[in-house]
Amino acid sequence: MSAVPSPYVGVIGAGEASDELAAAAEAVGAGLARAGAVVVCGGLGGVMAAACRGAAEAGGTTVGLLPGPDRADANPWVTVAVATGMGELRNGLVVRASDALIALGGGPGTLSEIGFALKLGRPVVGLKTWELARGGVADASIVAAATPAEAVARALGLAGAEAGRGSGA
Amino acid sequence: MSAVPSPYVGVIGAGEASDELAAAAEAVGAGLARAGAVVVCGGLGGVMAAACRGAAEAGGTTVGLLPGPDRADANPWVTVAVATGMGELRNGLVVRASDALIALGGGPGTLSEIGFALKLGRPVVGLKTWELARGGVADASIVAAATPAEAVARALGLAGAEAGRGSGA
Amino acid sequence: MSAVPSPYVGVIGAGEASDELAAAAEAVGAGLARAGAVVVCGGLGGVMAAACRGAAEAGGTTVGLLPGPDRADANPWVTVAVATGMGELRNGLVVRASDALIALGGGPGTLSEIGFALKLGRPVVGLKTWELARGGVADASIVAAATPAEAVARALGLAGAEAGRGSGA
Amino acid sequence: MSAVPSPYVGVIGAGEASDELAAAAEAVGAGLARAGAVVVCGGLGGVMAAACRGAAEAGGTTVGLLPGPDRADANPWVTVAVATGMGELRNGLVVRASDALIALGGGPGTLSEIGFALKLGRPVVGLKTWELARGGVADASIVAAATPAEAVARALGLAGAEAGRGSGA
Repeated sequence: MSAVPSPYVGVIGAGEASDELAAAAEAVGAGLARAGAVVVCGGLGGVMAAACRGAAEAGGTTVGLLPGPDRADANPWVTVAVATGMGELRNGLVVRASDALIALGGGPGTLSEIGFALKLGRPVVGLKTWELARGGVADASIVAAATPAEAVARALGLAGAEAGRGSGA
Repeated sequence: MSAVPSPYVGVIGAGEASDELAAAAEAVGAGLARAGAVVVCGGLGGVMAAACRGAAEAGGTTVGLLPGPDRADANPWVTVAVATGMGELRNGLVVRASDALIALGGGPGTLSEIGFALKLGRPVVGLKTWELARGGVADASIVAAATPAEAVARALGLAGAEAGRGSGA
Repeated sequence: MSAVPSPYVGVIGAGEASDELAAAAEAVGAGLARAGAVVVCGGLGGVMAAACRGAAEAGGTTVGLLPGPDRADANPWVTVAVATGMGELRNGLVVRASDALIALGGGPGTLSEIGFALKLGRPVVGLKTWELARGGVADASIVAAATPAEAVARALGLAGAEAGRGSGA
Repeated sequence: MSAVPSPYVGVIGAGEASDELAAAAEAVGAGLARAGAVVVCGGLGGVMAAACRGAAEAGGTTVGLLPGPDRADANPWVTVAVATGMGELRNGLVVRASDALIALGGGPGTLSEIGFALKLGRPVVGLKTWELARGGVADASIVAAATPAEAVARALGLAGAEAGRGSGA
């Protein structure tokens, strides 16, 4: 690989998305691609498709790790599709493959990915996503971002810091 | 199998546990075993070991789905150990194998299991575990219980209802 | 666990079996159970069901690692069923969970398990199963057995030797 | 995706390779890339690295599905690396992700992939690889090729036929 390998940033969110959330995901995908990052996702619709569309239209590489056995299920903006046949267990693969993750909105599948990421030490940046607490005390594990641009900047910074610790890839 | 198959109830929680949490997990395991349920867990220490100890001492069956490749890592109260070698991805297997789950306390791994369970439609009963919200509004997906006995009763009721819908096993 | 943990022996073979092969699988299951071994398999029909029936009728424990998401797919003689939802990838879990394996007949799924077992250093005993060669030279990695009793004896010996090397899990 | 999506062809073989086998793998990778196919492999050394080198130098895309948790383990010619953390279970993912496979030489891991491929209906072309038989009768499931060019041509033909049946992705 090149001397400075591209960061891999996962974009996670539900398979159906409001127009507002889809627009944010598309902006996130475009921002990541312009920065040279590879976009990793679950390969399906909603947030995943919007992020891939933004990245692909900016000339980026998008990796879709699909739950089913058929590559044809990938959204049209996935440039490399991996059909895992593992069902929702593929959520863990999305996290493993990423140096940092950006969560946009999100249902329960996104929550599973956030949990995995925190467990594996992958930084998570959140935009309108789950809020966590324990014993009534807010948990700050998810780095909050207010805009797509801020989410991209923070995720890239955290992915690089992670890589800088030598364990990031 | 018998006409009325045993429910499988997952007990999830961190690999290290305070005395108070371990006592609760042990009571949960014992209650599940007395009700004829199979206890499913990640097979390691902390909450997992306490739940297995409670269940095994009550004569129950405990299934440990281990992250590593070596069955010898199971805690001593696991009666059937499955070494998966899949790392933290085995969290998804714990959820899949369970009709309902009880979360006790919990770190990020437990959060990943809660997310998976909600995604797969497995009911989750929580005791001193994560609190979820979106947009500042509390999410009620986790059924709160105040005591181990209540957690067991609720999980068994939900596991049975799930089975009654024909998809439970 | 007890001072001398039970060996876990995988029984692998096709989901449909001739009467002769099913009888052999049933004898293998019974022999393993009488020796105190846990029988691990894919949980479905054919060789798997026959081995479980033999083991269960001899009072043994049988673990079925199912490809689908539904525990109800297990054959009636599985005592502990784990629904993996991983499809044929669960074949690797059957191998990982076993200290040694016995292959009876077998189609391509069995071949994948034999390959995994040889890769992971799990001994494989074969009865009327695949024959392997490279460059026209027979490969002796599969230990041939002529009868169910011989297959059981050899698998138990190899599982124990494996455990004796400290890696047996 | 484009109207005529690229075939994905897996190249499987051991992590250490003789000079002769590495040269064959490199020629296979180059031939696949020139035909517009995506090369899928396990991402490590030996046959995998040689195939990736051949493909990458011909301008192709190479996908490495790694057994470990760290993307940095990929060989330098992998253009998209997915760290699975699933150990040898990732062999099944290599097969799932491919429309057809080419086996070069091969140890037991390759055998597991051949078995998976035959189970999942993915065509396998073999060059100096395992020979299979049952009951003393040769099994013709692996399509034999005598040269790298023949292996590429046959794999592409079979991948296309597979796609033509509508299940190809």
